[in-house]
Order: sequence, then C-alpha cells, then structure tokens
Amino acid sequence: MAMRATEMRMAELSRRSGLAVPTIKYYLREGLLQPGRRTSVNQAVYDVAHVERLRLIRALATVAGLPLHTIREVVRAVGEGASVLDAMAVTQDALVGSVEARTPDPAAEALLERVIEDRGWHSHPDSPAHAAALRAVSELRAEDLTMLVDRLEDYARAADEVGRVDVEAVSGTDDLDEMIRGIVLGSVLRRPLLDALILLAQQHHAQELVQDADG
Amino acid sequence: MAMRATEMRMAELSRRSGLAVPTIKYYLREGLLQPGRRTSVNQAVYDVAHVERLRLIRALATVAGLPLHTIREVVRAVGEGASVLDAMAVTQDALVGSVEARTPDPAAEALLERVIEDRGWHSHPDSPAHAAALRAVSELRAEDLTMLVDRLEDYARAADEVGRVDVEAVSGTDDLDEMIRGIVLGSVLRRPLLDALILLAQQHHAQELVQDADG
Repeated sequence: MAMRATEMRMAELSRRSGLAVPTIKYYLREGLLQPGRRTSVNQAVYDVAHVERLRLIRALATVAGLPLHTIREVVRAVGEGASVLDAMAVTQDALVGSVEARTPDPAAEALLERVIEDRGWHSHPDSPAHAAALRAVSELRAEDLTMLVDRLEDYARAADEVGRVDVEAVSGTDDLDEMIRGIVLGSVLRRPLLDALILLAQQHHAQELVQDADG
Repeated sequence: MAMRATEMRMAELSRRSGLAVPTIKYYLREGLLQPGRRTSVNQAVYDVAHVERLRLIRALATVAGLPLHTIREVVRAVGEGASVLDAMAVTQDALVGSVEARTPDPAAEALLERVIEDRGWHSHPDSPAHAAALRAVSELRAEDLTMLVDRLEDYARAADEVGRVDVEAVSGTDDLDEMIRGIVLGSVLRRPLLDALILLAQQHHAQELVQDADG
C-alpha cells in the first residue's frame, strides 16, 4: 500500500513532533497515540492528526507535568470527540487534582456562594473547581487572612476577566477538536504565564507602595 | 525564673499553633523556629511571636508544599526584618522555583517587554518572575498558541489588578513584620484561590458560548 501525500513515516513524525522515536513508540504502546495506517507487516504511516496528538501529549507531560494516567484521561476525552464542556471538565479535574477534604467551613461556603451569585456564574457545586475554591477560602479563613478574604470580590472580578479571555481565545475556530485542544493546552500553558505576570505586577505595586510611604 | 503573663509552655504553644510537640521540636532543632526564653535547664517559655512563626512555617510547608530549605530562606528573610521588597523577592524565588533555561526566543522577549512597558511595570529583568514570564510566553509560541499570545495584554491587565489587590490587602498594617507575613502567606494562599475562581469563570463563559452557538 502506498503512502499518501499527507502521510509520513515514523522518522518524519519524530522530526515534526520534536519527540524521539522510542518516546513515540512508548505512547503508541500505552494507547495515548492512535495507531498509524499499516502499509506492511512492520511499517505504518502517520498523518497530521498524529503530530497534533503528540504535541498535546508533550505539553501535558512536560509543561503541565501531569502523570501518565491523567494524560490518558484528557487524551481520551479529546479523542472521543467530547463536547467542549466535557473536555473542560476533564481538564479541570486533571489540573486541580483530587482536592483533599477539609473540615466543613459553613462561613467559607456562604462567602463563596455569594461571590458566585454576584458574578452570575453558573457553577457545578460538585465540580473540582468548586471544591478547590471552597478549600482555598477555608484555608485563608483558617490562617486569619481576613484582608484577603475581604477582597474575594476583587479576585473574582479579575478571575472572570481571565476566564472570559481564555474561552474567547479558543472560540475563534469552528472546528470542535481544535477548540478542545486549545482549551486543554491553553489551561495548562496559560497558568504559569498569569502567575508570572501577577508576580511582576506585585513587584510594581509594592515598589509604588514603598515609594508612597517614603515620599 | 517566672513565666510572664504573655508567655506559654510548649504544651500551650502546640495547642495554639495546631502543631504536634515533636514537630515544633523539629523546627526548633532545624533553626526555623527561634528558641524560647529558658526558665530552667530543661524548660523554656514561648510567646506570641513563636505562635506566629509556627503558623507561617505550617502554611509554607502544608499549604504551599515548599521544601524545608526553601522555607528556611523565607523564614530567614522575615526573621531578619528584611524590607517588604526583599521579602517579596525571596517569596517569589521560593514560589517560582528555578526556572529552567530555554532556547532564547527574541520574539517572546520583545512581546513581553512591550507588555511590561505598556503597563508601566518596573520589572527587574533578572528576577525569577521575569524569567518565568519569558518562559511562559516562549512555551505558548512554541506550541503555536497564537490565540493566547495575541491576548497577552488582556492577561497582563487582569494580572495587574490581582497584583494591585494583593499588595493593597497587606498594606493596611503599619507593622512591617505583619506586612511581610501577609505578603508571604498571601502569595502562597491566594494562588490556589485565583486558580479555582478562574476555572469557575471558564465553566461559566464556556457554557455561555455553547448556549450562544446553540441559540
């Protein structure tokens, strides 16, 4: 069977994905990468979908540092043509991880519910994001960091802006697969960017504060 | 030597800090916790400064999950009465960790510099925050996530808001020690909060997007 113009052999797949051949073979064995089209008993050819899948796996493994079993769940959701919301839920699960249960803090729950309501967010109360937010507010309260708890609304407003930009960024395409890939990769790669930008902003505002105090 | 009214024995220190006595003794041996005031050969008393230090160590260890040698650096900066900016630099180092060097990406550098300039941020180019931001932009470019790179300004605006609120939150006190503790703890504990709030916002905006597409 002949190779089609858009197809490539393993060596080319390695070159285009930036991954070593043994690594690609490992992902094939583990079922993370879909099999290629077999052209003879011991040869197969791959196409652009394989390149894209490998780029996704690489980002999840090296950028997000997710363990293999988590990558498998994300890849399965993308591969099965899940809906945007399903894919987002799987990605959030993967990113948040299992949130350790804490002693219930009704006051933290009430604070979080009010902010969610004020923002008009439609939140799934059993989603990992919700559990993580509740845990974070409870931690702040447990540490008596009331000055941060008092600013929950400000943080929610900034978070709303970031979430809106995240979703807008990937909504420009009509292709559902491409959109899901954007959400998955975007969630993983945007996080260190925002963290770093916030640190830069902190430096700036702390300097202004010190200058104001000195002036 | 008598115990003063504001002082306490180890058992009370354990109760008030929420840490087991062997854990406290370990932190004493490791030099993370300053020694108490010795009242006899084998007894010492502690005060509210010890309670506060233990709360800080506990937050850094259990909430931020920082390794002991990093906690030591943060604690040393706080203990030595460093300036707000110094304490922030140490905290940022601890939170960002060592940023792996990447192949230089001049385009990413130019993009980041423009955003920093547009925002009027005074950034130290050799700070870990700057290195982390550069790495994040480079990653996004390497993954061809141009739709996210194109929105760098939007993310920087949201980050500026978060950084401003962070600094404002801890600037309410006149006590420098308390301010530094707020910055350190706030940086560590606010991060999971914002991450979770962003996930909630993503859920919301993705649902709106799907509804718009269906409607």
